[in-house]
Amino acid sequence: MNSDELRLARAYLSRVAEPPALALTAFVAEVGPVEAAARVRVGEVPSAVDVQTSARRAEDRAAFDLDLVTEAGGRLLIPEDEEWPKWPFNALAIAAANGLRCGLEPLALWVRGSHDLAALTRRAVAVVGSRAASDYGRHVAGEFGFGLAGAGVTVVSGAAYGIDGAAHRGALAADGPTIAVLACGVDTAYPAGHRVLIDHIAAQGLVVSEYPPTHSPARHRFLTRNRLIAALSEGTVVVEAGRRSGAKNTAASTSALGRVLMAVPGPVTSASSLGCHELLRSGEALPVTSVAEVLESTGRLGVDLVEATRDTGTGPPQGDAMRVFEALGLSFGCSPEAVSVESGVELKRVRALLPQLELAGLAERTESGWKRSQEATWRGDT
Amino acid sequence: MNSDELRLARAYLSRVAEPPALALTAFVAEVGPVEAAARVRVGEVPSAVDVQTSARRAEDRAAFDLDLVTEAGGRLLIPEDEEWPKWPFNALAIAAANGLRCGLEPLALWVRGSHDLAALTRRAVAVVGSRAASDYGRHVAGEFGFGLAGAGVTVVSGAAYGIDGAAHRGALAADGPTIAVLACGVDTAYPAGHRVLIDHIAAQGLVVSEYPPTHSPARHRFLTRNRLIAALSEGTVVVEAGRRSGAKNTAASTSALGRVLMAVPGPVTSASSLGCHELLRSGEALPVTSVAEVLESTGRLGVDLVEATRDTGTGPPQGDAMRVFEALGLSFGCSPEAVSVESGVELKRVRALLPQLELAGLAERTESGWKRSQEATWRGDT
Repeated sequence: MNSDELRLARAYLSRVAEPPALALTAFVAEVGPVEAAARVRVGEVPSAVDVQTSARRAEDRAAFDLDLVTEAGGRLLIPEDEEWPKWPFNALAIAAANGLRCGLEPLALWVRGSHDLAALTRRAVAVVGSRAASDYGRHVAGEFGFGLAGAGVTVVSGAAYGIDGAAHRGALAADGPTIAVLACGVDTAYPAGHRVLIDHIAAQGLVVSEYPPTHSPARHRFLTRNRLIAALSEGTVVVEAGRRSGAKNTAASTSALGRVLMAVPGPVTSASSLGCHELLRSGEALPVTSVAEVLESTGRLGVDLVEATRDTGTGPPQGDAMRVFEALGLSFGCSPEAVSVESGVELKRVRALLPQLELAGLAERTESGWKRSQEATWRGDT
Repeated sequence: MNSDELRLARAYLSRVAEPPALALTAFVAEVGPVEAAARVRVGEVPSAVDVQTSARRAEDRAAFDLDLVTEAGGRLLIPEDEEWPKWPFNALAIAAANGLRCGLEPLALWVRGSHDLAALTRRAVAVVGSRAASDYGRHVAGEFGFGLAGAGVTVVSGAAYGIDGAAHRGALAADGPTIAVLACGVDTAYPAGHRVLIDHIAAQGLVVSEYPPTHSPARHRFLTRNRLIAALSEGTVVVEAGRRSGAKNTAASTSALGRVLMAVPGPVTSASSLGCHELLRSGEALPVTSVAEVLESTGRLGVDLVEATRDTGTGPPQGDAMRVFEALGLSFGCSPEAVSVESGVELKRVRALLPQLELAGLAERTESGWKRSQEATWRGDT
């Protein structure tokens, strides 16, 4: 089975079902993409898959779509590629295993731009917020985008008006990488007023979508798209959000995926900050007021944490992740509550950090609770 | 022993030692104020008390001070009076028992104004912040002062320029009660530019000080004074605070006394909000953006909580205090960690609420942890 065959199969499947298509995804995992595509084409599929694919199964334009995306300076990324963001998408797999809809891994990703997606998401933070942003919010989003990009962190956002656009522009101004995740085909600029911005993002970073070329945006597609913004990032900063802002949906996905949710405080007299203050008051989000605080609250644990262990020797532990890691037992499992008490890191944050430490290979779940992984114990000895 | 004798003794003791005078306070508790005053006068005291009183023990002007405060429209309140804020000062006793300096109960309080201090502090919230406040901060402080006073809550503050003054003025504008706790004698207006404001506060509320008439303010007196602002209030709202603001000292006393610490978010671009954001980021303070949220986060538990239990019947629990109360066992003690898990209220907040429930007679400490008090169990049955 060659790579072209796989890519054609996934291109077809990407158009045939509207994400998130749970049954189809499970079917692909079971029989493989090539056989899945062949059987969808002829309608020989389980009934749950048929429900998701019967309407569009005759739309077999995979080769044409691949040509379209090539013309737009893009390509189709598939899970079989080296460039697939396997590491960030681990969080989706965990969420899926816990029965969360936001945990569905995409069947493929259409991308525009020459960067390597896996490399670009090695250190990435989402900066999102209202389209109806205030001057204050746009200013902060721009500063955060600029500062994060300057620190070598990829700024992920949704290319919308307001906060998203300001964050992307800040990153571009720093000559840094930025990723726009669209709710429409990557050959389609939405919003139309951001066509030039989206072209710049494709030139300097990546424009990414789960939707095939020519697909137009729709409300439910923004919600589906938001999980990818959260998944591709180590944490999400909500800069401004009204009470009903779509950014709150990205915030919910961020928490569900076990990533760090952050919110920027603003004037309590501003309706644009209502959603952020709700997230802060409920304790869902950590307040962040500067790029340094965003970096302090995120950080790729598998890399930074181990580096910190190695470099500082007998120095003080760095950050909450380190404190949580150090509170873990070497041979016996501990409950998150016990780890919270031991580390002095609040329970909510411990609950968010443990799965990250697990992904980083530093912690593992046992029947009696969480403990350091063998690997981490070994690394600690070096 | 009559009341005049007690008052003269405490007036003398109030001038003779600089608060907080731990040894003198313990000596008064041991031998009573009249004997303590008599023995301090002649220097027949334990050496620790002598250190605190020898410099001023000849300044026996108690009668003169009482005349001065009467002339200023005031009086001396002593712990033996009905009007003594016994309930709020319970928190001081608990803190003192835990060895905290901020837990020292004053030997007496000089007050100006006709209100009853115990009545005025039955429902009181402190609103404090920087002298160097921004327009935003003064606006919010004024709105909070106005709204709290309108809700029947006494606004406690320090009469300083900036946030304090705006909070007092807001309360006065609502024709509501407000208390200014000074770091100098109540016959002395400090800052001088707030003489008219302080007179208004005395006319409509109370001006209170631990220091005898004619005492001038000093830096250490502001710090000592701050514990009384915290103790007289169910919670403290920090509206704006720079990184080194004195309001952070009031915030620390608030937490140490187990009272609710709140902070108002502001623009992250404003240096005046730095201190508030630090308190939010460290988790010491709850974010509050409106008077309604301040009321939700405070509430006199001995009254409101029991009322809620009675009134709502099978209705949903109201507020964190109720959730914590309901998570407590009837016969077995639980750790704060277990209560946090059971109630879903975060550990830090559980730790703050348990002593309040204890003061309200609803919870008690046992060797195995916290449980509902017998009294609360009985009340729950009605």
